[in-house]
Amino acid sequence: MTYAVAVRLQRGLAFAADTRTNAGIDNVSQFRKLHFWRRTGDRVHALLTPDANGFSVSCILGGQVGDEAPRLFQIYDEGNFIEATDDTPYLQIGEHKYGKPILDRVVHPEMRLGEVVKLILLSFDATLRSNLSVGMPIDLLLYERDTLDVRRVRRIDENDEYYRKLSNQWAEALRAAVASMDEYKD
Amino acid sequence: MTYAVAVRLQRGLAFAADTRTNAGIDNVSQFRKLHFWRRTGDRVHALLTPDANGFSVSCILGGQVGDEAPRLFQIYDEGNFIEATDDTPYLQIGEHKYGKPILDRVVHPEMRLGEVVKLILLSFDATLRSNLSVGMPIDLLLYERDTLDVRRVRRIDENDEYYRKLSNQWAEALRAAVASMDEYKD
Repeated sequence: MTYAVAVRLQRGLAFAADTRTNAGIDNVSQFRKLHFWRRTGDRVHALLTPDANGFSVSCILGGQVGDEAPRLFQIYDEGNFIEATDDTPYLQIGEHKYGKPILDRVVHPEMRLGEVVKLILLSFDATLRSNLSVGMPIDLLLYERDTLDVRRVRRIDENDEYYRKLSNQWAEALRAAVASMDEYKD
Repeated sequence: MTYAVAVRLQRGLAFAADTRTNAGIDNVSQFRKLHFWRRTGDRVHALLTPDANGFSVSCILGGQVGDEAPRLFQIYDEGNFIEATDDTPYLQIGEHKYGKPILDRVVHPEMRLGEVVKLILLSFDATLRSNLSVGMPIDLLLYERDTLDVRRVRRIDENDEYYRKLSNQWAEALRAAVASMDEYKD
């Protein structure tokens, strides 16, 4: 399986995908699912593809062409598509359910790219803990609006300092939040 | 669809199920999925059943008989089953993915029943926000070990004061936790 997510912000686009592909639990390998193309100063496109072994071949395509606004699309198996908007700024493919609640609650189109990366990585963290078919490392691409270039691409593995810190802080914050709430009484 | 979860603690058992059944989005109704039987002082059984329209008919059955320990089982379509243990204290049926991360992180068998209700309701809150096929009210049954009686059954609806407070506090705590973390920098 796969987990991949992209977000369309006023400041640009963020793309992230895991890298696990599996054909059975004893046949697991690593596979790049984030791809991009650019003609610097003219256009940038990024594509998130699912695991080649998945049943669904939906993918996410986004980018910017010239002085048009950046756009982001989810293209379904059948060839039809939806486009991200301010109302629904993010799109997901693959094992999207574990990591959807945190995105539903917090993502909004005015965020900075560095802020949305927090949410994307927390969304991955929830998914990675609960589903073995999604695996590190995570490929990340941040596109800053109107740069018409790809300058921020990064592969985040288990030992990434920022990811580990984020994951630990989050676990701690959730436990503290749960503990601070009143217990249920009849 | 359905979302239902049960937890086996040292102090007893907790069961919860939503009440939505749908055969298409324009054919939605309410349906009890939590059932129980007792012979007071002798035995108690509770059963969580899926939406009658679901493809899977897995169910969750738990209870206590005489002076044996309380036990909790997930019974699959095919008739085979698994039993909850201290390592895996909770079992879920239906739309289980949205609400799994919070359970995976925090549930442990030493919890009090009133504590685990917080987690169960937060797990429902995540699911209800992200999936329309799961709907309020939520049926809740708390079984205290060795009572051999059912004394704590409750239906929780949208206006339930405890649920609303929990849901609001949680939303606020998540937003504060996200805000407190460092932004991503390359």
